[in-house]
Amino acid sequence: MNSSGIDPLKQRLREFAAARDWDQYHSPKNLAMALSVEIAEIVEHFQWLTEEQSNELPKKTMDDVENELADCFIYLVRLSDKLGVDLLNAAYRKIEINEDKYPVEKARGNAKKYTELD
Amino acid sequence: MNSSGIDPLKQRLREFAAARDWDQYHSPKNLAMALSVEIAEIVEHFQWLTEEQSNELPKKTMDDVENELADCFIYLVRLSDKLGVDLLNAAYRKIEINEDKYPVEKARGNAKKYTELD
Amino acid sequence: MNSSGIDPLKQRLREFAAARDWDQYHSPKNLAMALSVEIAEIVEHFQWLTEEQSNELPKKTMDDVENELADCFIYLVRLSDKLGVDLLNAAYRKIEINEDKYPVEKARGNAKKYTELD
Amino acid sequence: MNSSGIDPLKQRLREFAAARDWDQYHSPKNLAMALSVEIAEIVEHFQWLTEEQSNELPKKTMDDVENELADCFIYLVRLSDKLGVDLLNAAYRKIEINEDKYPVEKARGNAKKYTELD
Repeated sequence: MNSSGIDPLKQRLREFAAARDWDQYHSPKNLAMALSVEIAEIVEHFQWLTEEQSNELPKKTMDDVENELADCFIYLVRLSDKLGVDLLNAAYRKIEINEDKYPVEKARGNAKKYTELD
Repeated sequence: MNSSGIDPLKQRLREFAAARDWDQYHSPKNLAMALSVEIAEIVEHFQWLTEEQSNELPKKTMDDVENELADCFIYLVRLSDKLGVDLLNAAYRKIEINEDKYPVEKARGNAKKYTELD
Repeated sequence: MNSSGIDPLKQRLREFAAARDWDQYHSPKNLAMALSVEIAEIVEHFQWLTEEQSNELPKKTMDDVENELADCFIYLVRLSDKLGVDLLNAAYRKIEINEDKYPVEKARGNAKKYTELD
Repeated sequence: MNSSGIDPLKQRLREFAAARDWDQYHSPKNLAMALSVEIAEIVEHFQWLTEEQSNELPKKTMDDVENELADCFIYLVRLSDKLGVDLLNAAYRKIEINEDKYPVEKARGNAKKYTELD
């Protein structure tokens, strides 16, 4: 089902919104807000867990988090579509930028922000 | 370049982190935080704009937003990978749930949360 | 009841956490996450509203938002307490910084970030 | 300097916005977005730290976090003012609700959400 990449999902989301006449609500401003709300619903599951516990979620929490990851992805694809951004291309370009910012020999085992790397 | 879907991106991100010994920082808890920070960087661009203005970003802002959408996508793919979630499958499942929650005839032109739909 | 300022609230929150043995969860990292989740619950109420509608909330929404503003304030006071920050002093210092950054004659009617003010 | 509580700060922020003709931007919707952006700037400082490290911030980080706590507080006071909410009263009411939700004997040493307390 997922063999087809992001474009068919983008199309499906367009149809979902059009059928409900929801494009009137889907300004980039509003979609950015909705995306920030969905990610907070993920954060909520992790806020009182240790990092170790966050690696071993109980089944019920895992199902909830999976649902909320889906919501994030849906709004991210929808927002990108409204702005005409190709997410995969943008991601690969950003990785190339990050490879310059965080050269392996300086960044290894070091979470400092790149501006602080000497 | 993007013909290959999300799996090759997931693999590229694994290699990026491994080369820098960053898996020690990439607990689901921390990745969820990082994702929430990236989406806020998108929200920042929209906070004082009208909805109309958010549809017509100046070129410079558009480039910045594209970069930050890329960061969101990168952390979303990375977090999903750490949790073993297939984003595309999860999104399609969520759309099916939403089709039940928001039937076309009740949801049309109506942004109420589904629990408030009578 | 509120004549007494932030310090008595800070004290009350310390006692609340101590009685439940919750200080073990209240690291600054976790409290920052909790604060971000609470603000998202406010944002959720506004995401599909126009700016005008956000000025005229229905009674039920207003009550919910008030509760969530309280949660934000509680976590903000708690986080500041854990870090030894005096919120009111910090706010007045920041206003003075902002008065320099955004001089009245340049900033009037202009939401540009200060770095973009010429 | 801070002996005077939140009301004088609220008044100072009103004057700051009025002098710059910024009330046109300060809809509750926009202020909620701005608040969410400021809290993310706090979260950013903590995202790669352990909980222990978040308790012992270096001086430079501490100064930055203090500034961002101030920004959060400023927007929280401003948003509450626009909505007519008294933050201190709202906080004390919420604490009373929480005392019912999380009775000491059940909640002790337990970060479960109250709905999961048996």
